Amino acid sequence: MNLIQKFILFLFIFNLKINCFNKFSKTKNLNKINNLPGLESEINFNHYSGYLQVSNYHFLHYWFVESQNDPENDPIIFWFNGGPGCSSMDGLLKEMGPYLVNPDGRSLRLNKYSWNKNASVVYIESPVGVGYSYSEAWSLTEIDDEQTAKENYEAVKQFFEIYPSFRNNYLFISGESYAGVYVPSLCALIVDGQNEYPLKLTGMMIGNGYMNSRLDIDTTIKFAYAHGLVDEKLWQLMREEYGCDLSMMSNYFCQNKVEEIFEFVWLGGLNPYDLYRDCDAFSPLNSQKMHALRRGLLPTKINERIVAKSIMNRNTRSARFINDDLNNVTEVSSNVATDPGIPCLDDSDATRYMNLKEVRQALNIPSHLGNWSICNEDVSNNYNQIYSDMSPFVKKVLGAKVKTLLYYGDTDMACNFLLGQQFASQLGYRVIKNNFLNFGRRRNFIHRDNKINSKFTLETIHPV
Amino acid sequence: MNLIQKFILFLFIFNLKINCFNKFSKTKNLNKINNLPGLESEINFNHYSGYLQVSNYHFLHYWFVESQNDPENDPIIFWFNGGPGCSSMDGLLKEMGPYLVNPDGRSLRLNKYSWNKNASVVYIESPVGVGYSYSEAWSLTEIDDEQTAKENYEAVKQFFEIYPSFRNNYLFISGESYAGVYVPSLCALIVDGQNEYPLKLTGMMIGNGYMNSRLDIDTTIKFAYAHGLVDEKLWQLMREEYGCDLSMMSNYFCQNKVEEIFEFVWLGGLNPYDLYRDCDAFSPLNSQKMHALRRGLLPTKINERIVAKSIMNRNTRSARFINDDLNNVTEVSSNVATDPGIPCLDDSDATRYMNLKEVRQALNIPSHLGNWSICNEDVSNNYNQIYSDMSPFVKKVLGAKVKTLLYYGDTDMACNFLLGQQFASQLGYRVIKNNFLNFGRRRNFIHRDNKINSKFTLETIHPV
Repeated sequence: MNLIQKFILFLFIFNLKINCFNKFSKTKNLNKINNLPGLESEINFNHYSGYLQVSNYHFLHYWFVESQNDPENDPIIFWFNGGPGCSSMDGLLKEMGPYLVNPDGRSLRLNKYSWNKNASVVYIESPVGVGYSYSEAWSLTEIDDEQTAKENYEAVKQFFEIYPSFRNNYLFISGESYAGVYVPSLCALIVDGQNEYPLKLTGMMIGNGYMNSRLDIDTTIKFAYAHGLVDEKLWQLMREEYGCDLSMMSNYFCQNKVEEIFEFVWLGGLNPYDLYRDCDAFSPLNSQKMHALRRGLLPTKINERIVAKSIMNRNTRSARFINDDLNNVTEVSSNVATDPGIPCLDDSDATRYMNLKEVRQALNIPSHLGNWSICNEDVSNNYNQIYSDMSPFVKKVLGAKVKTLLYYGDTDMACNFLLGQQFASQLGYRVIKNNFLNFGRRRNFIHRDNKINSKFTLETIHPV
Repeated sequence: MNLIQKFILFLFIFNLKINCFNKFSKTKNLNKINNLPGLESEINFNHYSGYLQVSNYHFLHYWFVESQNDPENDPIIFWFNGGPGCSSMDGLLKEMGPYLVNPDGRSLRLNKYSWNKNASVVYIESPVGVGYSYSEAWSLTEIDDEQTAKENYEAVKQFFEIYPSFRNNYLFISGESYAGVYVPSLCALIVDGQNEYPLKLTGMMIGNGYMNSRLDIDTTIKFAYAHGLVDEKLWQLMREEYGCDLSMMSNYFCQNKVEEIFEFVWLGGLNPYDLYRDCDAFSPLNSQKMHALRRGLLPTKINERIVAKSIMNRNTRSARFINDDLNNVTEVSSNVATDPGIPCLDDSDATRYMNLKEVRQALNIPSHLGNWSICNEDVSNNYNQIYSDMSPFVKKVLGAKVKTLLYYGDTDMACNFLLGQQFASQLGYRVIKNNFLNFGRRRNFIHRDNKINSKFTLETIHPV
């Protein structure tokens, strides 16, 4: 290659970069949220909403809130809610975002415990099909854990192309419940791709994570027994007479009884996400929601029978898959199983807010997309769980010196703390610090630190 | 015997009865409470406070509140708090009496959930030495379960001599925690004495009862593990490597670890009586109280070591044993172990109130008695537990067709619900009704009925 050729190549590449830069820079400006509806107070940070193209046809919706403190230097956190099939906007608008939705479904209130007080946070609706994330393909094929991890990784990289100045900040990947699968699998890809696409991955944080499907079944039954939900004679029958392996459901009697207990945990009238909190007041929208899958997960084998039992009616809803190939918006009608059996959580506030026309406009949602819902049952029903144990992923991430925090609220039955405790123990690390006899209080919580190695912390959180 | 002799005998007996009647009738009038200090509202029932002589030297203090509804026909309930060594005035003034003491320790407020809305209730300070109950003997000998049961039975009979009109009412014996020993043992004596002293014993009710000492240790450890208080590796060591029999503490390692867990349950900063409620705000009086024994019980073997560890200071207090034989009030000085390790319950309100001079006068407390405290450590330390399993007593009572209710709040660690659940199961009755899958709500509670036979009910109460 002579100098002329090199110069031409340089011009070509330079031009490409300029184009890319312009494209992403333009995207950032277009995605900026101006005048978020319902927000009456002044805010002191920038926020953005838009799309990350993660494959030829798949577009994930994100909502990005910069840090209120020092966005240039504060860490950047990615957040995922679970399901699978539930939206991370739940985390943003109802958990730890800077503004929380009020019961009227129209106004927002500021949250003084927002994570963006000291970090920039990116909420991603994943996988495709959830919330306002959409596919341009004619129909949505089955999604599985591996594809979700790959597309989440693409989303992270895309994000840093649009917001390159954040790529040097400390990066944390976080989420709750079924994100116990998303987070370690995404982090493992970041670790594997570190040479090709360097990122400052510093930590992963998982709240009440679904880390192992066998342990989930086993510990749910034990948790239920030790919290007064299982009759003593039934327990003794299962344990002693039938010797039920709770996770294998080795015979018909055992399987049947495990299913009965799961059914009671999820549909018995208790709050599966906080045993000692009452359910939300009744709302008609409750019966439209797939509450069982909102933050938790029914074990796959058990799921079908319970859902089958609890389906009292089916209604037709429009999915939000569009097909640009035909230059024609296709609203795919589908029969969606509704689950009226858990009238415990009322998400009508977030549902109403996210579907307001002015909110959709402010968030740059394409007008041809269908309605937003907090969980998408099509996605859940077609989701293929292939990672039954997250140990290999967690070990890989820890091996790359990435700090790992598993934290569990002790009254959640959806993904209970014993699951996390046993998962952590099975990793086989030496416990170097155990504050078992030395609770410390922070705000309204008591934390029990259990540093399994210097990079790994298991925390059980006890509300008082 | 001729007619003259018979007539003389008749006169003698008649005279005796008249004397007795006069004596008891006079007692009733003397014991009536007039103008209870701190009570600003009008009350619509009679109440009494006085003494029941249960042996040559022992006098138990009682406080009797008639039903607000229909005292002539409503049931009559006897109530005992636990310890052993704690006062039933705790139940009256801080749990379900008609008036509850305010934090100022001077005023009372009406309690709309009082049990005396539909029943007359007798609160007895038992055994001798507790609260304002006293002995006239030179020194108090050891008290044990059998003697306590006998003296409680004497108290019941004495009560009906003073208040004979209530002897035809339905009679219930009730209590909580260590009263899980008092109540069945008292009821068994009532059943055995039915021919000599007929009573309409209709039911017994026990809240979070200490029914079996072995089960108490075993289930406390399991409860602690399943509520996040025991590290997984420690648990696995105890269960698998050392095969600890939790109740037998078969070797030094096991015994030591069981003690550590008990120490944490009682002294770790959590509320042992309600895991999900914060401790009371700090009060100087906290460090003067034997909180561990207020409503619960430390297993005897473990008790000594934990108390020994937690004694940071000892102070001298005066006991309230008087000696009338010498016509001389003897204030017995004793070194009393204080337990500053559980700063969780604040009983300063009841303590202040019960020691007010005007309250003592209104309650007819002899002026030479020492100060009242909610628990008496002398009694606790000298109490000899001889009934390790209440099954024989419960079976005898059930055999006499007396209804039995065991109810357990599911967040109490002092006497946890698993203890009751396993105790009930071990009685061996057939479960004829099990509302496991059919919770019903009453007020703020969910009740799980588990009718073991038509006379026996186990209820686990779950706050929401």
